[in-house]
Amino acid sequence: MTGLLPWLEWAGVAVFALTGALVAARKQMDPFGFVLLGTVTGIGGGTLRDVLLGIRPVPWILDPAVVIICAAVSLAAFVSAHHFEREGRTRVILWADALGLALFTVTGTAKALEAGAPAISAVLLGVVTATFGGIIRDMLAGDVPLALRRDVYVTASLAGAVAFALANRFVSPDLDDVIGFAVVFAIRGLAIRHGWSLPTYGKREG
Amino acid sequence: MTGLLPWLEWAGVAVFALTGALVAARKQMDPFGFVLLGTVTGIGGGTLRDVLLGIRPVPWILDPAVVIICAAVSLAAFVSAHHFEREGRTRVILWADALGLALFTVTGTAKALEAGAPAISAVLLGVVTATFGGIIRDMLAGDVPLALRRDVYVTASLAGAVAFALANRFVSPDLDDVIGFAVVFAIRGLAIRHGWSLPTYGKREG
Amino acid sequence: MTGLLPWLEWAGVAVFALTGALVAARKQMDPFGFVLLGTVTGIGGGTLRDVLLGIRPVPWILDPAVVIICAAVSLAAFVSAHHFEREGRTRVILWADALGLALFTVTGTAKALEAGAPAISAVLLGVVTATFGGIIRDMLAGDVPLALRRDVYVTASLAGAVAFALANRFVSPDLDDVIGFAVVFAIRGLAIRHGWSLPTYGKREG
Repeated sequence: MTGLLPWLEWAGVAVFALTGALVAARKQMDPFGFVLLGTVTGIGGGTLRDVLLGIRPVPWILDPAVVIICAAVSLAAFVSAHHFEREGRTRVILWADALGLALFTVTGTAKALEAGAPAISAVLLGVVTATFGGIIRDMLAGDVPLALRRDVYVTASLAGAVAFALANRFVSPDLDDVIGFAVVFAIRGLAIRHGWSLPTYGKREG
Repeated sequence: MTGLLPWLEWAGVAVFALTGALVAARKQMDPFGFVLLGTVTGIGGGTLRDVLLGIRPVPWILDPAVVIICAAVSLAAFVSAHHFEREGRTRVILWADALGLALFTVTGTAKALEAGAPAISAVLLGVVTATFGGIIRDMLAGDVPLALRRDVYVTASLAGAVAFALANRFVSPDLDDVIGFAVVFAIRGLAIRHGWSLPTYGKREG
Repeated sequence: MTGLLPWLEWAGVAVFALTGALVAARKQMDPFGFVLLGTVTGIGGGTLRDVLLGIRPVPWILDPAVVIICAAVSLAAFVSAHHFEREGRTRVILWADALGLALFTVTGTAKALEAGAPAISAVLLGVVTATFGGIIRDMLAGDVPLALRRDVYVTASLAGAVAFALANRFVSPDLDDVIGFAVVFAIRGLAIRHGWSLPTYGKREG
């Protein structure tokens, strides 16, 4: 998957930046609020992964291309977000977030394996990469993180990261990215469409 | 204390993971919400300490035992938390958190000294290790962090870290862990039992 | 600017610590809450910058002077904050924050350039240094971050960081700090005084 990796990473950065900018629209921020929230969402998960792996400096310092992508996407959202009505925007946030979740699960797990992490830690770092950008976004915006709500979310990322690691080891490094991506996006997409959730603790309480 | 250190660390990770999982129960999360919140709470403080110290990669990437402990504790809490009624659960969270606070104050200060930090910074890193897992837990769950509420909390950790550093230097490295642990747990335990708080700013206001 | 850099850094740490302590006063915390919130606010932005740059350990571990400054300022605020009435305190928070924003924009950009970051990343790290201490402060206190509210804030920091980097390259390294500081403080100060804001997304909606 080596050749594809940077493209998948950039696509993940762009769609997560879009979700950050659309949350900024919902909170009626100014253009720099859009850029800040979009950028933090776009690069937050990968930055945390690289800090945990001990890659220094964090790669976007040496090559700020991803930051420029985030700023451009955020400003584009600022000038165009009003074309979506409110429900449309919520739907775009959900689906772009699902796409970013699938892309970052794959790239996060791949980069951790590349850096020499054992499989179980690589899976964890894939989930961290995929979920923490959105967690930081939601915390900055004062919302309960999507990742902690009831719907199947962390589950989808975890299943995809495991599928990626297994495919990388036992199937073929040429297919691992497709398999990992498909698992996350299918599970998360079905969960959005059908309102799936896992049984929660509270259900058994009353 | 070298021989005991990993065991105290694992015990601290386990009890903090338990508090994270019980907060997840209160927020009625699904099993993966339990695991995410339990794991972040269990390893958050130590991870921040190691990032600040510049240990790379963060140790649980090379040896994910603590992550497995967190996941196991969180899932065990998911299948058993309904045996406690609501008040019982709140009490378990408070006391497990106090135990974790005492354990992590000791291990955090010890690890920072071991890594060569001067005493005052080691004390600070002990407090950071002990308090930030819970701070991240409470922020993710949308609560005001326990560490910032009025009751004697940071105070207990700070007193214990100072006691540990003094005992390590002037008494004996064989007793420092017992002394540090006892100071934190005694102060924090008495504060919980008797509702102690320090005078707050507001008291003088009205 | 090399000679001045540590002094500007210490001044920035002190005024940001003051804003953290005054937010602690508003939330009626105890003395250790003041110290925790003051310290995190004072050193949070610079710590994040140094972690991203990969400087290890984080400098205040080797030389905890800035931490002692934060603790001293926070305790001084605890014993004296009641001399300000509520509105006075809010005004002091706003202006001290503006001063810290200007100081940290300059020192953050300067340190990143010194560490070898390309100009665009140095500008970004200047903004990160200047804004994240306050963002962490506001999130810990349960407020919407000042940096994400409508008034010209990130804008001021960004303009000053760009001015600093341009002055450093094309004017003179002796004047870059004065120019950068003046740009941030003038823009942010005028925004506070005249209630400036950029057009927000919401304005175009209804």
